[in-house]
Parts: sequence; structure tokens; C-alpha cells
Amino acid sequence: MHVHTDYLWFSTKQRREFVRITDDVARIVKESGVKEGMVLVSAMHITASVFINDDESGLHADYEKWLEKLAPHEPTSQYRHNRTGEDNADAHLKRQIMGREVVVAITQGKLDFGPWEQIFYGEFDGRRRKHVLLKIIGE
Amino acid sequence: MHVHTDYLWFSTKQRREFVRITDDVARIVKESGVKEGMVLVSAMHITASVFINDDESGLHADYEKWLEKLAPHEPTSQYRHNRTGEDNADAHLKRQIMGREVVVAITQGKLDFGPWEQIFYGEFDGRRRKHVLLKIIGE
Amino acid sequence: MHVHTDYLWFSTKQRREFVRITDDVARIVKESGVKEGMVLVSAMHITASVFINDDESGLHADYEKWLEKLAPHEPTSQYRHNRTGEDNADAHLKRQIMGREVVVAITQGKLDFGPWEQIFYGEFDGRRRKHVLLKIIGE
Repeated sequence: MHVHTDYLWFSTKQRREFVRITDDVARIVKESGVKEGMVLVSAMHITASVFINDDESGLHADYEKWLEKLAPHEPTSQYRHNRTGEDNADAHLKRQIMGREVVVAITQGKLDFGPWEQIFYGEFDGRRRKHVLLKIIGE
Repeated sequence: MHVHTDYLWFSTKQRREFVRITDDVARIVKESGVKEGMVLVSAMHITASVFINDDESGLHADYEKWLEKLAPHEPTSQYRHNRTGEDNADAHLKRQIMGREVVVAITQGKLDFGPWEQIFYGEFDGRRRKHVLLKIIGE
Repeated sequence: MHVHTDYLWFSTKQRREFVRITDDVARIVKESGVKEGMVLVSAMHITASVFINDDESGLHADYEKWLEKLAPHEPTSQYRHNRTGEDNADAHLKRQIMGREVVVAITQGKLDFGPWEQIFYGEFDGRRRKHVLLKIIGE
């Protein structure tokens, strides 16, 4: 049994941004030498997500608009969390919709993906340094 | 350590449909011979979900109505993704609510479930061939 | 390879409640002796969640208000599931937003967490005995 740990770092320029990380995850899986197993990819910050969906800019614009409708940033005073001096309560809500983590199968040394699956880091309160954890387990 | 991989195939008649797959997952876990470990069950398509909830038709009708309220299919022109020629942007949104995957514990050779847990394949853009991945890890 | 199983029990006083379980999970991970691996923490009931977010009471109040807006408890007659004699259809919906499970990495014998990650049991139909499963896998 083999266990491998790694981290990816981000510092987005926008408050909200989706960053494709499939190639980084694939590279780290290859480096681990694990041929059969699983990789956990999880946001280590509670205003960010890791999720799997389409690499299509129109869809990403739809997500942005939809998440703003379900959990609007403004007015920031509508959230009790923001009384602590934060303005990111909406980011904590958006992250619950999009999820914290994904677990991806590794088969014959590769991410075992369907035709359109791509892994994204979803940032909802960016412009500061944050990281994502990868934990690979297998043989 | 033992790792086992399998796939389930679907081709639903309706655009949206929930298919109970607990028995298929249980059978594949049994076939794997793994007595203690985990099974990852994940949708390989980005307009579909795997989720765990109740096997009750009224609840499934509630989910359908609720998901249509949160992310309506019509008008399809409201989504930028649909300018690519697709009409399934809503399916990409619905799948984020319901989730991509579940990880289920295997204890003494069986799915370690509470009294009402059932695994479902959730289709949001069906009428074509799609698949679900099972990755079993354990001993 | 080492696999360890444990359960946590809850009986909340309120219908809806968030219970911090990070310390319980950390204790069970320590008891397992696993130094490198993963722990699955999952709700065994379909009207409850396990999720990771901030231990901040204002945010929890925001979650409560937001989930009630997205999936209101009243009027209970709006849900077909409640025709079965239940009044908890909203709880099945809320749990899909907040999620069933988390998978957490174990590194050097500890939960490999970002600065603010805390694990919560999210109850949406409480006042009765329910449990959460922990499955630890690693070495």
C-alpha cells in the first residue's frame, strides 16, 4: 500500500474564479507511482470548492450568475457572519452548493474519467493565498 | 490490499430520472471479495449525479420539482452554456446540488448503511448511454 | 494496511442543529493508529449531513435561514413525501445542499486540515437517536 500527499497553491486575482487543475492532479498522481487506487482532492479553505464539471466558459458564467442568485454577496449586511468583520458569508454558502472535495478513481495509473470530466478549484473569496490537498492511496 | 474496478451503464428513457442502484453496488462489492474498506461510486458524466437518499416516489417527485425551481430547464436561452448548441445547462447546475459521487464504507463484506440509505443514479440529461464508476479499495 | 470502523451517536433537542464533531473524529483517528490515509465521516440517516465549515455561530444562523429559504419546512403540505405521514421532506432536501459525507486526509497521524476547517454533524430532523459512521483506511 502506498500513500502520497501533496498540495496545490492558489492566489486568484478575482474574488470569484474557477481554475482548472486536472493536469496538476494527473501529474501528481503520476509522480506518486500509484497505479490502482483513489485520490482525494479537497479545498483546505471553507470559502472555496473543488468540483468536477465542464471546461466551458459559458457554463462557468452560468454558475457565477446562479450562485449569486442562490446566495448573493450583496447586501453583505444580510448575513450575521459578516458582523464579525468579514464580508464573505456568501462564499461559505456558495461553497456548500459546489462542494468541498472530490474523490477520483485511479485506474492503470491514470485518472479514471468520463469524456468531459475536468477538476476545478472554485474560489469564492480570493485575492489571498489558499491551498488544496491531494491524498493518494493505492498500490 | 485489494482494489477492484467496475462500471454500470444507463440509458434512461426520460430526460430526468432516478435509478436505484444499491443492489448493483452491493453485488459488485460482494464479487470484489473486499470485507473491510470503501467503495467510491461516481457519475462519469457531468450532467448526472450519484446520491444517497430515500427510495420513496413522493420524495423523488419533490426533488424533481425543487431542482426545477432552483435551476429551471426553460427558457433554455437564459444560460450561456446553451449557446454552444446544447440545451442542458440546467442539468450541469442540478448535478452540483445532488452531487457527483458517494463514498460508502464496507464492513464485514457489506455496505455499512443506516436504515433508509439507498444509492441512486440521478440523470438530468438522459436518453443516451452513460456510465457510473465503482472503485473498491480495502482488504 | 489498516481499516478501522467506529460510530458516533446523536440525539439533538432541536429539529435542526449543528454539532461540532472535529474532536471526536480526531480522537478516533488517533485510537486507530493510522498515520497516513483517509477517514470517511458519513451521516447514516438521510435527513442529516456531515459537512466541513466554520465554527462560527453567526454563520450557522445564516445557514439555517438560507436553507429555510431554499427548502422551507412550512407548509408541510407542499411536499408529496409528507403524504406518507412524515413532515420531514424539507430535511431530505436540505441534506442534499449540505452533503452526506466528508473524506478527510490523515497525515502524520492527524487530520490534515486548513486553518478553519471544522467537521459538523448537521441535523435537519432531530429529536431522535441517529448515528454517524467513521471508516478509517491507511497504514
